[in-house]
Amino acid sequence: MNAPVITDRYRAEIESELRAVLEPYELPLYGMMRYHLGWCDEKGNPARVDSGKAIRPILCLLACRAVGGDYRDALPAAAALELVHNYSLIHDDIQDDDEERRHRPTVWKIWGKPQAINAGTAMRVIAGKALFRMRGRIDDAKLLRCTALLDEATLRLIEGQYLDLSFEDRFDITVDEYLRMIGGKTGALISCATEMGAIVGGGDEKGIASLREFGAAVGRAFQIRDDMLGIWGEASKTGKPSGSDIRRKKKSLPVVYALTCGDLAVGKRMREIYSHQAVSEEAATEVIAILEQAGAREAAGRIFEESCTRAEELLAASPIDDAARVELESVMRFLARRDY
Amino acid sequence: MNAPVITDRYRAEIESELRAVLEPYELPLYGMMRYHLGWCDEKGNPARVDSGKAIRPILCLLACRAVGGDYRDALPAAAALELVHNYSLIHDDIQDDDEERRHRPTVWKIWGKPQAINAGTAMRVIAGKALFRMRGRIDDAKLLRCTALLDEATLRLIEGQYLDLSFEDRFDITVDEYLRMIGGKTGALISCATEMGAIVGGGDEKGIASLREFGAAVGRAFQIRDDMLGIWGEASKTGKPSGSDIRRKKKSLPVVYALTCGDLAVGKRMREIYSHQAVSEEAATEVIAILEQAGAREAAGRIFEESCTRAEELLAASPIDDAARVELESVMRFLARRDY
Repeated sequence: MNAPVITDRYRAEIESELRAVLEPYELPLYGMMRYHLGWCDEKGNPARVDSGKAIRPILCLLACRAVGGDYRDALPAAAALELVHNYSLIHDDIQDDDEERRHRPTVWKIWGKPQAINAGTAMRVIAGKALFRMRGRIDDAKLLRCTALLDEATLRLIEGQYLDLSFEDRFDITVDEYLRMIGGKTGALISCATEMGAIVGGGDEKGIASLREFGAAVGRAFQIRDDMLGIWGEASKTGKPSGSDIRRKKKSLPVVYALTCGDLAVGKRMREIYSHQAVSEEAATEVIAILEQAGAREAAGRIFEESCTRAEELLAASPIDDAARVELESVMRFLARRDY
Repeated sequence: MNAPVITDRYRAEIESELRAVLEPYELPLYGMMRYHLGWCDEKGNPARVDSGKAIRPILCLLACRAVGGDYRDALPAAAALELVHNYSLIHDDIQDDDEERRHRPTVWKIWGKPQAINAGTAMRVIAGKALFRMRGRIDDAKLLRCTALLDEATLRLIEGQYLDLSFEDRFDITVDEYLRMIGGKTGALISCATEMGAIVGGGDEKGIASLREFGAAVGRAFQIRDDMLGIWGEASKTGKPSGSDIRRKKKSLPVVYALTCGDLAVGKRMREIYSHQAVSEEAATEVIAILEQAGAREAAGRIFEESCTRAEELLAASPIDDAARVELESVMRFLARRDY
């Protein structure tokens, strides 16, 4: 079975759990959340808009099954993860001044930054409330463990976002610093997803730990893939203009590599280009050529492959159900090889 | 014993609990929090700056004692409440574009809005982690109850903030809408403080409920007092220029009252003044005169007195320890009558 088929099976249930979580809330503040999640337009009229890949909730459900649990028990955890991810997108868009997401105006672009800050933070709080819907299905100690995990993952995610923003003015970021940053920004919530799934599913400590590590490796591979698509992706598939991350001066892995690879001419030219307020289309094309020439594409691809291999090895060594292993592998490959 | 003496007894312990909560965190992101809390300057050098009245944590500790508990058990809850309050101030300052708080530059003014958003949200997350320091001192079910309460209070606080911002462009806000807004923005966290204190202290459901209601009434009185001080307070005591809330066009209770009291001339003139980009010092003086003349000061004072009376009655009827009742009364009177 290929990955989209597996994931489609769960997506509808995740969405209906999310809708149930948000159901009691009526103020327009919550309409902003529904808009962001793709359920309505800005006036509140029902809409159906692509709302992302739901990677975190799906990995959570699969991890729950992998240790022999009933994935339905983990639906509240899956919803909570998706809410944390989406709160972070709402705030990211404010922080990066991004006016569009998924081909629509961002929340702040419509409602202004002050209210978008409220919507984002409130969505993070509701994520905690979503977890409580597991009460009675799992014991209180486990629920507390999940709550603590989600808090910890959120904190690491914010730390990653903090680092990412602090990289904007720097040209001396090492690959290790970059990996630490994405370990927070992307890795923390994905490893929280697989870990929580394993906890809810009743896994033993060994199974929980190996699924957590698996999630961290998947998260790293996923983010590096994202970085590469942001530079070399096809616009028709990613929905973003080709080279868009260069024009936005993102310190993604290929850029970090090129800046610190020791080739002084490369570093000098890139600093020159990035010192301008805006990077023109021509300059972006030049940067892409520099990156290729400096071996940055290859180097990023290598770290990507290492992360994939590590994830595969962790999965192979995990004491989990074989059918679930196949599903997790297939989802992982899909995520890692996707071209959008 | 008067209130400052009572509160000083607890403040040092609350601060050391807060410092212990933040201790493990080293990134500069957490330095922003320490700065906001008044423990250091912007470079991280130790400082001692007034960091507010610590109303919420103190009420929490007193409520814990009131039901016969050991207040030390509630210190983590007290710290969590103070962190939620302070996260909301960090975000408020961004939302209101305020450049100063407690006579120092606000967090966003120093580190920029994107990073201040991170610091605020991360502080809210750490509040949840602070609660976990009660684990083992209270049972898991109670800890979950406190977590859920803090989430709910935060959500109501954000709803209040949402409403407050949405009032900015409106001239038709009713007193009831205003009271709903402050019930969220100020009341929710104060009633959460007394309720959590009572839960941690082992109060029965009746005691818990009456302390929660008491907190809500204190919160209302407290906010109305704040509104009145923002217009008629003495600059030398409040630290803000007299009439500052008028110049900032805040829709505080006296203003809301005057705009909707039915005196058309009053409403018309106020709309005229408020339709300008900025309210001059002269115009602010005129607004203050209009408010007096329209009976807005009296009306606000009346609602304030009603809230105080309600708080006193709730306290008198509460099934709590008599010594604690005296302390709570004294703190409440201090808060309600303060001139700063």
